[in-house]
This record gives sequence, structure tokens and C-alpha cells, in this order.
Amino acid sequence: MKPIQLKHAYRLINHGPVVLLSAEHAGMRDIMAVAWNMPLDFEPARLLVVLDKTSNTRKLVEGSGTFGISIPTRSQVNTIMSVGSISASELPSKDKFLHWNLATTPATHIQAPLLNESVGWLECKVINEPHNQSTYDLFIAEIVAAYADERVFSNGRWHFDDHEEMRTVHYTSGGSFFTTGSSFHIDKKTV
Amino acid sequence: MKPIQLKHAYRLINHGPVVLLSAEHAGMRDIMAVAWNMPLDFEPARLLVVLDKTSNTRKLVEGSGTFGISIPTRSQVNTIMSVGSISASELPSKDKFLHWNLATTPATHIQAPLLNESVGWLECKVINEPHNQSTYDLFIAEIVAAYADERVFSNGRWHFDDHEEMRTVHYTSGGSFFTTGSSFHIDKKTV
Repeated sequence: MKPIQLKHAYRLINHGPVVLLSAEHAGMRDIMAVAWNMPLDFEPARLLVVLDKTSNTRKLVEGSGTFGISIPTRSQVNTIMSVGSISASELPSKDKFLHWNLATTPATHIQAPLLNESVGWLECKVINEPHNQSTYDLFIAEIVAAYADERVFSNGRWHFDDHEEMRTVHYTSGGSFFTTGSSFHIDKKTV
Repeated sequence: MKPIQLKHAYRLINHGPVVLLSAEHAGMRDIMAVAWNMPLDFEPARLLVVLDKTSNTRKLVEGSGTFGISIPTRSQVNTIMSVGSISASELPSKDKFLHWNLATTPATHIQAPLLNESVGWLECKVINEPHNQSTYDLFIAEIVAAYADERVFSNGRWHFDDHEEMRTVHYTSGGSFFTTGSSFHIDKKTV
């Protein structure tokens, strides 16, 4: 994973992939799947996520004021479904990372475990907006560091063509996904 | 286009496609591309869009309190780039619909032109949140009607396999897109 410019961080999620959100607080850590995520601004780099009130990971986000985003691939779909459909409280160890042997790397600018084998990482600090958080479960955050796997993202661009299993994925509902498909380019229009 | 249940409306955009947003107010109409859109809630069905302050379409949204979302396809990418990169003020007619011969259908529950040949339509009423709108260019809206092309969306599911040119598309940056790729299903996990 290589650092990428913060002004390019939005490009990791601009195409709408499902992401994994992890957080750490007071000796606890957790991770969840988040389909409802999107960029909010370029500079400062900001993003939005929707985190349900019942989620344990949200409690850790509220406690620490920070979270990590890992952008998973086609080869990690079982992990996406596992961490997305089961609560840590249902597990004997009460820890999703231990239960599913999820290898992680510590974030650099915040405290959060980032998932290995993902193709992008975003380190985020929550911008406190209590009304949005309580009324809409909506969290606004600033991206303070960003990394991408240079095999599939370099010079500010995704390029999955030689790495089918590293393609990102898009969630619809009920366990159904789309793989990120073929890329194409359209020149900017003039009148 | 057939009406779909409002509780399924989020599924039209859950996978993160770029959409076209249109609005009408005081005899003016306009349309723009919006990559930054996502669902916010199931019931009531709500969504989020980011609309830059310089956009003329945003002014019409602010005036009318409503907007339409049309979900374009692979075959409409030139329209996406045209309406997304050129302002109506640059056009001789000052009207994107006239300039590019965009055929539309009137919305049913609000006043807005919906783009023909799209595979989904959402009719939306803005939920007034002045702080989000002024600070973040962020608009929250309730979806009051939803329609989809039954050739590619039925029983609450997308199914593009027999309709390659009707696949939705995902924007990255600088004129680069991904087509919505192959679908797959993962069973919900149990511990």
C-alpha cells in the first residue's frame, strides 16, 4: 500500500463500492460493512457514512472520534458478508478480527485496524455534527490519510484489468453484489 | 417504466451509479450529473446528493424544493458528460434539453422533467436542512415516487445480463467511468 494525495482520496470511493469501516476505542475494536458511503469534498477531503444506531462499531466511532475505511475486493466477499451480517456480541470471542482471522495493519494518523488485502485505506476523523448523527445516523468525516494498492491504483486512477480478483464490489441488497465492471473514457464535452 | 415500492427505492442507487438530477422552477428547467449520491434510509425512503453552489440546477432545487433523479445507462454516457460538464448558461438556447434533444417525461408527484431511456426514476422532495446545504452543499430528500424499467429491474432486483447497453455506470474522475459489472450472490453468514 502506498500513500496517495489527499486531494485524490475521493477517487477511491467515487465509483460507489461497498467499504469496511473499522474503529478502536478503550481497548475494544470492531468492523462493519458500509454500503452507504460517498465523498463529500475534495480539499479538505471529506466523506459521508451512514452508521445504524444499533451498530457496535458506531459506538467505538463515537468514543474515539475516528475510523478507518478499508476498500475490499472480489476475493474478500465472504468477509464483507460476515462482518456485515453478524454482530461481535454473537461471537464467542466477541471479536470479529479474532473469529475470522482478519489480518490488520494499524492506521498511521488515527487508532484503528485497517484490513489487509484491501486495495484502499482511508483514515478518517469525525466532524462533530450531532443533529445529523442523531436524526439521520449520518457521519461526516475528514480524510487525514489515504493509501492504495499500486497494482490497481496509481497516478490517481484505478486500473483493474490485469487483476480480476482485486476488483472492488458494489452492494445491492440481500447478499447480492455487482463487481466493478469494465472501464471506459468519455472526453469532456464542449458546446 | 413501472412504479416500484418506495421501500425498494434505495436499491436503484445502492450500488453507487452516477445519476442525472433535474429540476424545474418558475418556468426554468435544468439537469446535471451527480456522482455523489447515496441512500439515507429505507422507510421513509430518503437519499443524499451533493450539489455545488455554482450549479444552476441547484438554484431550481432550492426554488422548487423538489428534484427528479434519472438513472442513466451505458448508452447515455455522452449525455452524462454533456450535462455534467457544460452549464446551460453556455448554450445558445440556455436549455440543455433543447440543445441536446433530450426527451423527457413529466414527474408524477413533483414538477420535474425525467429523462427518457433511463432505467430508473426517483421523485424527491427536499427536507430543509439549511446548515447542511450551506456548509456542505449536502441535500437530504425524501423519495416520494420511484419507477424502474422492468426489463432490467423487477421484484426489487437489477438484472442486466440480457441488456448490456442498459447497464448503469459509475463515475471516477476526469471522464473515466466503470460499467456496472457481473452480479453475484453470497448467502448471509451465520456464526
